Amino acid sequence: MKKLPEIYDVREVTRSALFRVEQLKLRFSNGVERTYERLAGFGGGHQAVMVVPLLDNNRFVMIEEYAAGTEDYQLSLPKGLVEAGEDLLDGANRELKEEAGYGAEKLEHLTEFTLSPNYMTHHMQVVLAQNLYEERLEGDEPEQLGVHIFSFDELPELVARPDFTEARAMAALYLTRDIIQGRNQN
Amino acid sequence: MKKLPEIYDVREVTRSALFRVEQLKLRFSNGVERTYERLAGFGGGHQAVMVVPLLDNNRFVMIEEYAAGTEDYQLSLPKGLVEAGEDLLDGANRELKEEAGYGAEKLEHLTEFTLSPNYMTHHMQVVLAQNLYEERLEGDEPEQLGVHIFSFDELPELVARPDFTEARAMAALYLTRDIIQGRNQN
Repeated sequence: MKKLPEIYDVREVTRSALFRVEQLKLRFSNGVERTYERLAGFGGGHQAVMVVPLLDNNRFVMIEEYAAGTEDYQLSLPKGLVEAGEDLLDGANRELKEEAGYGAEKLEHLTEFTLSPNYMTHHMQVVLAQNLYEERLEGDEPEQLGVHIFSFDELPELVARPDFTEARAMAALYLTRDIIQGRNQN
Repeated sequence: MKKLPEIYDVREVTRSALFRVEQLKLRFSNGVERTYERLAGFGGGHQAVMVVPLLDNNRFVMIEEYAAGTEDYQLSLPKGLVEAGEDLLDGANRELKEEAGYGAEKLEHLTEFTLSPNYMTHHMQVVLAQNLYEERLEGDEPEQLGVHIFSFDELPELVARPDFTEARAMAALYLTRDIIQGRNQN
């Protein structure tokens, strides 16, 4: 394992309501010095969670939400921030109920993703939700989200759609497909 | 298809050397109004590209780079920004040579990813690189990156590693595995 660079200075450069930018001064083990910027603090210190809601071993639930970054409606998986004092799996179930209108009897932490580890400190927990039942909770969404059911058989067509581009949701679906297939073979 | 919200105001809230934050005022088709923030302009308007370098139908090349966001060395795929006046595939090949020490005779655009379409305007082009040959170009990296070879057979173990967390690289590898398997069956 390589020797980590020494971070000899960290300071906040700017912040907005949602984002905070830090500047870092680094010295690599070969003596080279660099000044980097990274995005920090997105989400106010709360854990972010993404939910893969499985109806059975093939079908899953997706949401359709307006995306202000790309200025179109995009397919994604239910996701949000865990609230203060809330358990990760409870937060996942709440987001599932708010965004997709389903609750889950069985919730399981699968893995942790980063977005862009070179430039962002963000992590996202991925939770598998099974044994679903219909239940809708009122969320803070400006409009009710579209809810769509797809199957892993359709994954090649799904990832080619222009309204499904979010790499985290794709990685979560591929990962889940492999896990489910592996369990079924055992 | 849902009617898009009306964006009736966009203004820059703050910017740093690398990041630019915009505030948007939106009116959804149901009349609900919201103020959102999004990250814009990361990369100075240049296209971002990620390369999947295949040695054969099973083995691929990864890089190991210090990630200032997570403060550790992370495995990822070669990636970077296409330069002004540079073709996307030429930019992909240049990044491959700079970061991994390989060039490719065959380059193919696979798809486009977003990071977090709700909060970021960023897109990343995914390019498959095949028929590799050894060639290193001097890049702007502070130290030479680690280069490692993995196979799709090892993908389940790879995505479980704590030093491989970047969802975009995972999605690109899963997508490539499916495409290669599909082509071999035909």
